[in-house]
Amino acid sequence: MISESKMEKIISLAKRRGFVYPGSEIYGGLAGTWDYGPLGAEMMYNIKDTWWKKFVASRDDMYGIASSIMMSEQVWAASGHLKHFTDPLEGKKFNTMFKSKAGALKDETTEVYLRPELAQGMFVNFKNIVDSFHPKIPFGIAQIGRCFRNEISPRDFLFRVREFDLMEFEYFIRPASQQGGEKDWEKYFEYWRKKMWDWIKEVGIDEKKVHELEVPKNELAHYSKRTIDFQYDFPFGKKELYGLAYRTDHDLKNHKLDYYDEDTKERFVPHVIEPTFGIGRTLLALLDSAYIEDELGGEKRVFLRLKPHIAPIKVAVFPLLKNKPELVKKAKEVYEMIKKDPPDGEAGIHSTMFDDNGNIGKRYRRQDEIGTPYCITIDFETLEKDDVTVRDRDTGKQERVKIDELTNILKKLIFKKE
Amino acid sequence: MISESKMEKIISLAKRRGFVYPGSEIYGGLAGTWDYGPLGAEMMYNIKDTWWKKFVASRDDMYGIASSIMMSEQVWAASGHLKHFTDPLEGKKFNTMFKSKAGALKDETTEVYLRPELAQGMFVNFKNIVDSFHPKIPFGIAQIGRCFRNEISPRDFLFRVREFDLMEFEYFIRPASQQGGEKDWEKYFEYWRKKMWDWIKEVGIDEKKVHELEVPKNELAHYSKRTIDFQYDFPFGKKELYGLAYRTDHDLKNHKLDYYDEDTKERFVPHVIEPTFGIGRTLLALLDSAYIEDELGGEKRVFLRLKPHIAPIKVAVFPLLKNKPELVKKAKEVYEMIKKDPPDGEAGIHSTMFDDNGNIGKRYRRQDEIGTPYCITIDFETLEKDDVTVRDRDTGKQERVKIDELTNILKKLIFKKE
Repeated sequence: MISESKMEKIISLAKRRGFVYPGSEIYGGLAGTWDYGPLGAEMMYNIKDTWWKKFVASRDDMYGIASSIMMSEQVWAASGHLKHFTDPLEGKKFNTMFKSKAGALKDETTEVYLRPELAQGMFVNFKNIVDSFHPKIPFGIAQIGRCFRNEISPRDFLFRVREFDLMEFEYFIRPASQQGGEKDWEKYFEYWRKKMWDWIKEVGIDEKKVHELEVPKNELAHYSKRTIDFQYDFPFGKKELYGLAYRTDHDLKNHKLDYYDEDTKERFVPHVIEPTFGIGRTLLALLDSAYIEDELGGEKRVFLRLKPHIAPIKVAVFPLLKNKPELVKKAKEVYEMIKKDPPDGEAGIHSTMFDDNGNIGKRYRRQDEIGTPYCITIDFETLEKDDVTVRDRDTGKQERVKIDELTNILKKLIFKKE
Repeated sequence: MISESKMEKIISLAKRRGFVYPGSEIYGGLAGTWDYGPLGAEMMYNIKDTWWKKFVASRDDMYGIASSIMMSEQVWAASGHLKHFTDPLEGKKFNTMFKSKAGALKDETTEVYLRPELAQGMFVNFKNIVDSFHPKIPFGIAQIGRCFRNEISPRDFLFRVREFDLMEFEYFIRPASQQGGEKDWEKYFEYWRKKMWDWIKEVGIDEKKVHELEVPKNELAHYSKRTIDFQYDFPFGKKELYGLAYRTDHDLKNHKLDYYDEDTKERFVPHVIEPTFGIGRTLLALLDSAYIEDELGGEKRVFLRLKPHIAPIKVAVFPLLKNKPELVKKAKEVYEMIKKDPPDGEAGIHSTMFDDNGNIGKRYRRQDEIGTPYCITIDFETLEKDDVTVRDRDTGKQERVKIDELTNILKKLIFKKE
């Protein structure tokens, strides 16, 4: 009961404040689709950006691509999806790939499928990447992108949806039969398992709510020899958040692809370790992890304890009073100063916000509710001493800071190593 | 003939070096789909990032969202797309929206459409944005996202495709009937027209190749009262690059949406100015604008004169010789130093590259061909004097720079105001 009500509160906050709206809402909604409002879009951006830097940009062994959502029928025949990507429905197997027709003239019309996963986009480009960049094994191909699944019963907010973004990479390793590859799959499986835990901490998901599930052999996907699900204690139950799969050489073999090792002069089919991260599920787990109701100064409040690098707004700037032009003017100056040299290096979308609506207490509450880590207030003392108050979201404590030190202090606060 | 051959050269370079590969290529390709390799994905990222900062992040009047690709049939009925979004085909009207079915059980199955434009995602969220953020008119709702059109004849590389990304915003203004709104549509049409030209210059498209076309009244889209196409001299002809449309109140009216002005206490249907930017077409125009064949030091070469903030790789680091461990070691140190404090503030994907393959002249050529603005070479003098050569892509000129000044100098070079 308590959990259900937390879920309702999160969905309501998400809609009211502009994180997530139901898709096609003014026409009664389209099941399994959600639109991200300004704060949700910014949070998604922060999640993607953090992931890309950690797993792609900072690594020399990872190649980031962006492949098409529509792929030819033959891709899904080779991968096994046409046959196996099904859910049971009234005794029959129901294929959950969305299908459409491309082409106009009858004899040129072809079946196309919206990808239900990113992986095949990486596999079908394996040879292209090898030809363009000559990478040495082990290496990975990564992408972030949209996937579609015709779920029989979309439900649980962002959890089971028909349209969603994934972040994923295929990490290509030597097979056990190759010299030096004897223990590679176990080694890299453990390596990425650890990195996935690092990610969970870095992004700010409550790690006490994350549990590994060793998927039993008889429940493994058709391509996998071993899979660990990272489950999260969502308000609606313990459910899959991320996955780590050993896909063997299933895919490259079916696509008839292989790799020639210039050093050993041998040709072989690489094996694959695949970590998969859902973005909507990440966002949902983050909202759940961060959602806190407490009391501050004798008043009840709701706040999102999001890490600063994930919070959609990093800094809000307020004049203490709306009807004092000298305060509003000064506050606008401070606002413009921060926007010119933003603490997140301009990575953010609307990372700095100006607000002069309602009393200062209400404005703090509004920012708490969307997870803004720092609020800057310009008061009468500012006009004399050229300093402002910086309020910390979690503690409510305020400190006075000189304006000419403000942007540097914000940078340190927001990007402090934790 | 010359133009045709330039196109072929660009397509070949794009594939060979990892900018763009044909979609589903190992199965003979899927017409109208293209996969972006590591360099193309990075360039797309740079284009999107530059656009978002200019038109969304830096502005207080713009709300960025990310709406679903799948939308309900009713959206497209109201917008007029079911009726009007057609191309003529053998005497009949052929609707170019991709269609699919969502849901599994027969009585729950609904028709869904893949959006052929971003705009309706902004319109159907108009009320949500107003309720969450209470923006004052004029304001805009922006997004970057994937669209699909079942083109009868996909052709001309990235130009006419079935799956593509757009960057777009709807800018909501007062109708002429409202006090203070008498001249608003002309005013904001001109305002955004100018901003679009600013963008063309900033991103680095050759402005001499861009021409405005006033779309004749009888050729206007069903929703538009005035449209300017920004055409580009592509190798295959003068074709639409961007569009600027005055959509009147067509969409909000059809969706039965309006706006209540707190200041004037009046309710009205805002009108809309809409600038649209294709990302694939931007990338293609940039490759065409940047592609140059010249002679350097008596040798022919190809180089891409991309602006540094758009180039996929900003800096390449080389040891002069591969077989001198002391040079390789030092070069790796310099490489790691730059990666730790990258000139693009970690915004990039693979923005720094290490290469020790082949002779130094070949490595310079390889970087020229992908538009890398600066190459750093570590030579024997480096080991004595702790300085390196910095080579400029366009002139081929080299300067020696102290290693401890290198990252700051690179930052200045790459983000210099032009």
